[in-house]
Amino acid sequence: MENLQKVLNGIRPLKEDYLQKAKMKLDSLTKPVGSLGKLEEIAQRYTAIKENMNPSIKRKVIFTFAGDHGVVEEGVSAFPRDVTMHMVLNMLSGGAAVNVLARHVGAEVIVVDIGVDHDFEPAEGFVIEKVGYGTKNFIRGPAMTHDEALKSIKVGMNLADKFAKKGVDIVGTGEMGIGNTTPSSAILSVLAGLSPREVTGRGTGIDDETLRKKIEIIEKAITLNHPDPEDPIDVLAKVGGFEMGGIAGLIIGSASHRIPVVVDGFISTAGAMIAVAMNPAVNEYLFYSHLSSEAGHKMMLETLGQKPILDLDMRLGEGTGAAMAMSVIEAGVKIMTEMATFESAEVDKALK
Amino acid sequence: MENLQKVLNGIRPLKEDYLQKAKMKLDSLTKPVGSLGKLEEIAQRYTAIKENMNPSIKRKVIFTFAGDHGVVEEGVSAFPRDVTMHMVLNMLSGGAAVNVLARHVGAEVIVVDIGVDHDFEPAEGFVIEKVGYGTKNFIRGPAMTHDEALKSIKVGMNLADKFAKKGVDIVGTGEMGIGNTTPSSAILSVLAGLSPREVTGRGTGIDDETLRKKIEIIEKAITLNHPDPEDPIDVLAKVGGFEMGGIAGLIIGSASHRIPVVVDGFISTAGAMIAVAMNPAVNEYLFYSHLSSEAGHKMMLETLGQKPILDLDMRLGEGTGAAMAMSVIEAGVKIMTEMATFESAEVDKALK
Repeated sequence: MENLQKVLNGIRPLKEDYLQKAKMKLDSLTKPVGSLGKLEEIAQRYTAIKENMNPSIKRKVIFTFAGDHGVVEEGVSAFPRDVTMHMVLNMLSGGAAVNVLARHVGAEVIVVDIGVDHDFEPAEGFVIEKVGYGTKNFIRGPAMTHDEALKSIKVGMNLADKFAKKGVDIVGTGEMGIGNTTPSSAILSVLAGLSPREVTGRGTGIDDETLRKKIEIIEKAITLNHPDPEDPIDVLAKVGGFEMGGIAGLIIGSASHRIPVVVDGFISTAGAMIAVAMNPAVNEYLFYSHLSSEAGHKMMLETLGQKPILDLDMRLGEGTGAAMAMSVIEAGVKIMTEMATFESAEVDKALK
Repeated sequence: MENLQKVLNGIRPLKEDYLQKAKMKLDSLTKPVGSLGKLEEIAQRYTAIKENMNPSIKRKVIFTFAGDHGVVEEGVSAFPRDVTMHMVLNMLSGGAAVNVLARHVGAEVIVVDIGVDHDFEPAEGFVIEKVGYGTKNFIRGPAMTHDEALKSIKVGMNLADKFAKKGVDIVGTGEMGIGNTTPSSAILSVLAGLSPREVTGRGTGIDDETLRKKIEIIEKAITLNHPDPEDPIDVLAKVGGFEMGGIAGLIIGSASHRIPVVVDGFISTAGAMIAVAMNPAVNEYLFYSHLSSEAGHKMMLETLGQKPILDLDMRLGEGTGAAMAMSVIEAGVKIMTEMATFESAEVDKALK
């Protein structure tokens, strides 16, 4: 906890100086000022995060945190619990959507077992850092202890430390966990002060009856556990999940190393909300990859005051949105570093 | 003209059969049904265009048509006329935005001089097929003759034929031409039956006074030349530009070879409107890459009944939006062909 606070205190707002120098550089390139829209905003912020006027993106890693959820026994998901385990195996053999999209954009996928209810064999690209064999059913008590919540954050922070040393340029978040839109909706409800009815959506595709039940369960969980909206770790412990803890930790750790983080969709943004609640400056190091078609995601982004890069009507998670947006971010960075200037291209002669 | 009509007649709507088979394949993959949103729609349509259940994208080419515009002498642009020539040279040396983004997504750029007011030296990746040294000022008479309009379409069709033989999988459109939002706005106004005041925007960034003048000029041009909204070639000839003709021809030729076309922004969509007006089935072979921040683009897409893939607040042209969207389209195709099925990943066992 002491170390967490120290790392959090070390994360500072971006320097105005770099933002301005990047803008000047972008305005000198052979294009009308501002005509590359979001690509320019991305390049500007990327430069300021790195404090480097000539950044390049070589190593890109997506961390997909997998965990199970006790609340699944209430029937809140369209899929049974062991799909988490099967999908982890699918990811390890390269057949999941996140593998395909990460390969497409030249990113690696690291799968992190942070709390799946299964004992896996070790494998390449697989980190086993179990905080538990799934969370507890949070309509009977807290999803996890305060210590487990801190431990899950620590898992993410340690990964950030380890990969910062290995020289990763940008990281993406992702997750796999049957039932995890339920805790994510609960986190949103508590941290944004919105009712479960407003924020809860259909996850992987539940019917009206199940949606009604899911809302009731979240209401019950909040009433029973009364998480403290001023204490993000308390919220994570009482109505969260291990994945969101891991993601929050990855975000905090990466920001502390000046590594930009591409936040995936609904569940990842719940993790980001936890991290940003601990230190709002963290937000300046994050790129929100896409607008999920899960209903509450828009409210999360509004609460955070952020705009997504893409809107592809996706709602799969795993890190699929992060993969897609990584390529757009890389495009922005290349615009900044590879385009000719009006001067170098001698277009300025025509302008005189 | 006879050949054009024959090619147009050969373009048929996509077969329902392939659309359905692609949907079935997508629904068998390890993800909730429909959870990859636009990526799945793209994969489905791509499959049906190719009539191939296992398509792959190897060669991607963006054609950037460059031309000058007589109307520039009225002061409708923020940039002087010879910037067209300078930007062509910039593209040939790889320093323009389209070069950077095409390299990023693994696409080639072919620059086509279809009507720049300059005699260029031959260069690699450069096609010189001049229809003229710029169009005429269309507030004094038609921008080009009916024959020149046909010739510009022919340039694009011939490129499609040539590259179809070379084995290109997908093409993108792009353009460069100082002043070309003016004819594009005029085309939109005539074909959609909207007033110049409604459809005309700020292009590369003109002030209020210049915008007022630009609108007046388009009004004058339409009144003087009275293009026939039922005859797209007449519209192209009277208030269009060589680039839009080339783009329309590239689209028609590519569709006839079952090659999907990624349409760039405002000017390219004006070209697409010309092509689609000649045969509405053409639209099924097109992917609209992004929503330009040029005001009229939204109206173009609404008129065509189409949705853009991306919205990155871009308004640069050249093929920059096409490049960005090509990568998304390729991602969709890979989802379809590289992901595990529930059966192959043995996830179906958990679902029984």
